[in-house]
Amino acid sequence: MHVLIIGAAGMVGRKLVDRLVADGGPAGAELTKLTLADVVRPEFPAAFAGDVSTLEVDIADPATAPRLVQERPDVIFHLAAVVSGEAEENFDKGYAINLEGFQHLLHAIERQSIEAPYVPRLVFTSSIAVFGAPFPDVIGDDFLMAPLTSYGTQKAVCELLLNDFSRKGLVDGVGIRLPTICIRPGKPNLAASGFFSNILREPLVGQEAILPVDRDVMHWHASPRAAVGFLLHAAAIDTGPLGGRRCLSMPGVAATVQEQIDALERVAGTKATRLIKYQPDEKIARIVAGWPRAFDPQRALALGFEAESNFDEIIQAHIEDELGGKIA
Amino acid sequence: MHVLIIGAAGMVGRKLVDRLVADGGPAGAELTKLTLADVVRPEFPAAFAGDVSTLEVDIADPATAPRLVQERPDVIFHLAAVVSGEAEENFDKGYAINLEGFQHLLHAIERQSIEAPYVPRLVFTSSIAVFGAPFPDVIGDDFLMAPLTSYGTQKAVCELLLNDFSRKGLVDGVGIRLPTICIRPGKPNLAASGFFSNILREPLVGQEAILPVDRDVMHWHASPRAAVGFLLHAAAIDTGPLGGRRCLSMPGVAATVQEQIDALERVAGTKATRLIKYQPDEKIARIVAGWPRAFDPQRALALGFEAESNFDEIIQAHIEDELGGKIA
Repeated sequence: MHVLIIGAAGMVGRKLVDRLVADGGPAGAELTKLTLADVVRPEFPAAFAGDVSTLEVDIADPATAPRLVQERPDVIFHLAAVVSGEAEENFDKGYAINLEGFQHLLHAIERQSIEAPYVPRLVFTSSIAVFGAPFPDVIGDDFLMAPLTSYGTQKAVCELLLNDFSRKGLVDGVGIRLPTICIRPGKPNLAASGFFSNILREPLVGQEAILPVDRDVMHWHASPRAAVGFLLHAAAIDTGPLGGRRCLSMPGVAATVQEQIDALERVAGTKATRLIKYQPDEKIARIVAGWPRAFDPQRALALGFEAESNFDEIIQAHIEDELGGKIA
Repeated sequence: MHVLIIGAAGMVGRKLVDRLVADGGPAGAELTKLTLADVVRPEFPAAFAGDVSTLEVDIADPATAPRLVQERPDVIFHLAAVVSGEAEENFDKGYAINLEGFQHLLHAIERQSIEAPYVPRLVFTSSIAVFGAPFPDVIGDDFLMAPLTSYGTQKAVCELLLNDFSRKGLVDGVGIRLPTICIRPGKPNLAASGFFSNILREPLVGQEAILPVDRDVMHWHASPRAAVGFLLHAAAIDTGPLGGRRCLSMPGVAATVQEQIDALERVAGTKATRLIKYQPDEKIARIVAGWPRAFDPQRALALGFEAESNFDEIIQAHIEDELGGKIA
């Protein structure tokens, strides 16, 4: 099996590569070739015995997608995107990469099929940003897509295109709407959602972290490990039961900040939770108030997608995957 | 006021031009210039005293949109589209015209605003095809867009783009989801929806018509006159109350075929209804079974959009507008 990952140098992309190299292709398929593309050249997976191409590409360039699919990869993971804040600030860049990049990819796959049948599995990472307030307390699978950001709009449009190109038999698409990924490894960052990870990740290594919102704020989370699991499962499932609706809200954990902190205390004690400093930030509080709180992802659960069932497990996954199983 | 109509040679476009020439611009504005564009050169509106350009253009050509907006029309009506059946059969053409043509238009307007502020009112004709089965009996304003055709997908995507470009202040968009237009003037055609008009239009002039479905089939209708009214109202309303959701299901008349025929009998007697021949067509019945039956368009009604209130009025509008007020 030849797997193409577009956006292979990002956080989730790198973890996906590691998992593929360690475990082989989706559903036990033998992995013979990996094509890894990103705006910076992805790291070469030295532990992989098969064929590897690493490519530095601009997916907004119409010449890129035809080049990526010319060797007809069996499975394509499309993870590449300009993030929410950047898509809002740099409007044209957001559209060029998040929407037109995907249109180029779909049309390049369609053109490949002119010469000989070619219908790759195309796994697309969408986002809960396709939904916009006002929300119900729990968002069901039939809730309308009414995004309130350019990023959410671009993801919603790609979902509609993925459905239609799949219905026409031009790709075999699965779109997965990722929860907010928590705990994100790395340094604290200034993204509005950053604190959800910061308040756990930093105290686990003895560092202080800032909590900018009230503890009753509820949000929807899954670990990086779960995200990689979603991608691999999306590459392996029978898409027949999806019908015309190829895009699914992924399972996750709905938790308040207080529940996150309680879980941290159970795992690492008060010496960890004491490091969380409450420093209210009106701007962040206002942004987060416009985000979904919880989902009832029945379709994804019925199809076997699995996330953590509580925040203790999310923290445990971080300790195992990022801290070598040990905490400070 | 300078008004640009893209798709001015179509049935609704021609009626819109006639109304503008007769009544002046939206909300009583003085109409000084009309730019009429279509894939065939629109008829020259001889009765109009102002400036006129008629243009034969291909909106799939990226050079077209910049040319159409270079004189900065105040109001743009975007009616141009490949119809549902053609978009399904000629997949690439449907995307090139119905989606990429609209993307070119949005980007051309955005580029105009680089030199000097330019935020035209952009009225976009969407369709109830943005919705896909399974439906509730009555579709509310918060029902999800899950189209089951390429045409519906293209319209849904354009709606999302119109919302986002409006939110960013780049256009002042209003999208209107038209009901099935009934009674369509002209000859009987082979479109799956054609019979809804045929069974009224033909008997009104003493001709036979074929009814291919059962009389309990319910669907959602408005007259061509109402459609032109929607367009002009959409060009005139205060868009503030629309918030981030610029696209609206239009009002209409939910009627069964039996109710259509009953109205015809009231208006034209049994000598008209006797001309309707029941000739069941499984294929058409199956297509129509997948269509919405009725809407509860509260947002549009609150904003003052108006359709007919029953089928007698729809038939009367046809008699007045197409038959000079007389029936055979």
